[in-house]
Amino acid sequence: MKNNVTIKDVAKLAGVSISTVSRVINDSKPVTDEVKQRVLDVIKETGYVPNPLARSLVTKKSKLLGVIVPEVSDSFVNEIVNGIECVTKMYGYDILLANTYSEKSQELKSIDLLKAKQVEGIVMISWTLDEDHIKSINNSGIPATYISKTAQTFDVYTVSTNNEDATYDMTKYLIDKGHKEIALIMTSEADTILETERRRGYERALTDNNIAINPDIIRYGNTDHDNGYKVMAELLDEGIKPDAVFVTGDEAAIGAINAILDKGYNVPNDISVAGFNNTKLSKMYRPKLTTVGQPLYDMGAVAMRMVIKMINGETLEEKKFVLPYEIIERESVIEKK
Amino acid sequence: MKNNVTIKDVAKLAGVSISTVSRVINDSKPVTDEVKQRVLDVIKETGYVPNPLARSLVTKKSKLLGVIVPEVSDSFVNEIVNGIECVTKMYGYDILLANTYSEKSQELKSIDLLKAKQVEGIVMISWTLDEDHIKSINNSGIPATYISKTAQTFDVYTVSTNNEDATYDMTKYLIDKGHKEIALIMTSEADTILETERRRGYERALTDNNIAINPDIIRYGNTDHDNGYKVMAELLDEGIKPDAVFVTGDEAAIGAINAILDKGYNVPNDISVAGFNNTKLSKMYRPKLTTVGQPLYDMGAVAMRMVIKMINGETLEEKKFVLPYEIIERESVIEKK
Repeated sequence: MKNNVTIKDVAKLAGVSISTVSRVINDSKPVTDEVKQRVLDVIKETGYVPNPLARSLVTKKSKLLGVIVPEVSDSFVNEIVNGIECVTKMYGYDILLANTYSEKSQELKSIDLLKAKQVEGIVMISWTLDEDHIKSINNSGIPATYISKTAQTFDVYTVSTNNEDATYDMTKYLIDKGHKEIALIMTSEADTILETERRRGYERALTDNNIAINPDIIRYGNTDHDNGYKVMAELLDEGIKPDAVFVTGDEAAIGAINAILDKGYNVPNDISVAGFNNTKLSKMYRPKLTTVGQPLYDMGAVAMRMVIKMINGETLEEKKFVLPYEIIERESVIEKK
Repeated sequence: MKNNVTIKDVAKLAGVSISTVSRVINDSKPVTDEVKQRVLDVIKETGYVPNPLARSLVTKKSKLLGVIVPEVSDSFVNEIVNGIECVTKMYGYDILLANTYSEKSQELKSIDLLKAKQVEGIVMISWTLDEDHIKSINNSGIPATYISKTAQTFDVYTVSTNNEDATYDMTKYLIDKGHKEIALIMTSEADTILETERRRGYERALTDNNIAINPDIIRYGNTDHDNGYKVMAELLDEGIKPDAVFVTGDEAAIGAINAILDKGYNVPNDISVAGFNNTKLSKMYRPKLTTVGQPLYDMGAVAMRMVIKMINGETLEEKKFVLPYEIIERESVIEKK
């Protein structure tokens, strides 16, 4: 730094104490207008720049918000982060972003890091949130909102969509298109609340339409392309060729389409495929993916807005914020002949 | 925070001065073993946690590194950031990530932010770096490395690949596959050094193989899918149907393929298409994209490693670090019949 003027120099030149200068800078306690002006004049003359670290020590405000994500390169996460960033900027905060690669140890370390950096609030995105994460954040007293497949289970602030209804509606849409044998490939483990909800939505839609549930065509994988490919290839290798496949993640859905194509079938003519999330990818791929639209950008924006409200001591109307979804018709699902 | 023990309490209980406690915590100046042990014992007994902000004020080390990116959701940027993160973690630093949406004003604001947060080093990724960015970072004295299409022009630390040779080699590869009318769609403006280099590589390959340069089939766009689509659609609408199209970015290349498909042609049977960067997307799309592989992850890792070396006062062998590229053959280019 070129400018070596210190707060001491400013105090001396203005003929006031260091704490008075500090009060003026941070607008913290009343100072007479006359004194205030004198200090501001000296600051202007000397070109004094307050040390931001020292400053945040005084005001106890870091103006930093922490965001914990499983994988910033995942298209689902990405769009949520864009929404978070927009709100953060709007309110004059900066972001400390921690990438955890979905490892629990890394997630806990990230929480500690954000605490150490004295962030004022946290948005945590985690595939599988548990007690340990929540305890660690709660202990710090830092306001937090969670976006997680498992967040519904806990008494914490969350943003989500209604997964059971969304899965019901997409399954119903496939049934209405004449499909009867509808495989379900889920993008996380069977025992999470999210997958339970989704499976319930799927099964309810089948039952309501007098289609028997076939556990053989309900599979579990994860969110990435290669996993979707693998699970779909296994199904086909077992001699199962469903009318339609509903994959609860776009990237994995595209993996499933690629597996179908590589086995010599056509999508959607031989097998229809539907995804979930309406990520950028779903519009870029051909055939364009029919998918469930979750308002990812809005989810991020709302989650961060909730945190900022908590920081400012405003009351939140609800603890579990549920945003609407929609069925987006594109090219990967057609009417069964 | 639950633990209210202060550095004052520790000093009092250990019978030493506050600055001695600070020295022990920060390992900054020599303290006798006996005193050190006494302080550490008190810290252990009381459960005292040093205030990290106060601590970084004392040690003048924030242990934070700044990363400025044009758009974290861009697949090119994404893979570089993964490389950056890996090295950052390895050396025990944390990252402050600023997303600029490629706006110059936002880029300059981000530099100011990182300076205010006292980051120890910066990796800046920017499509179009200019004097103002560099001046602002140089004034702060913070070590920095740049990844930018225009970084070569400046006397700064950069990481890149040899773009002219890479473009030459891909063009030569297309020629060797029997293509003569090879369109070039570039993903940034004509006047950047990067595009000049790339155009030179392309033209040199044509000339070396006795193919006339046709300016009508050299176009400029940007990196995203929709722009690649638009530029390619324009070419076809003008009645130009080249043998092959070389697009200097994968996402835009996929946009170009989609435009070709939507006009009723097949890729690669009617028109071959090649991309640039070997992003995740290039493997997911069908036909799989033939592309130039830049070691994006390595570029990020090397850029951050250079910054950390500078922080530690180690000497760097070179200021312009050039990493190797490769031609990756997939399905979007075939031999012309």
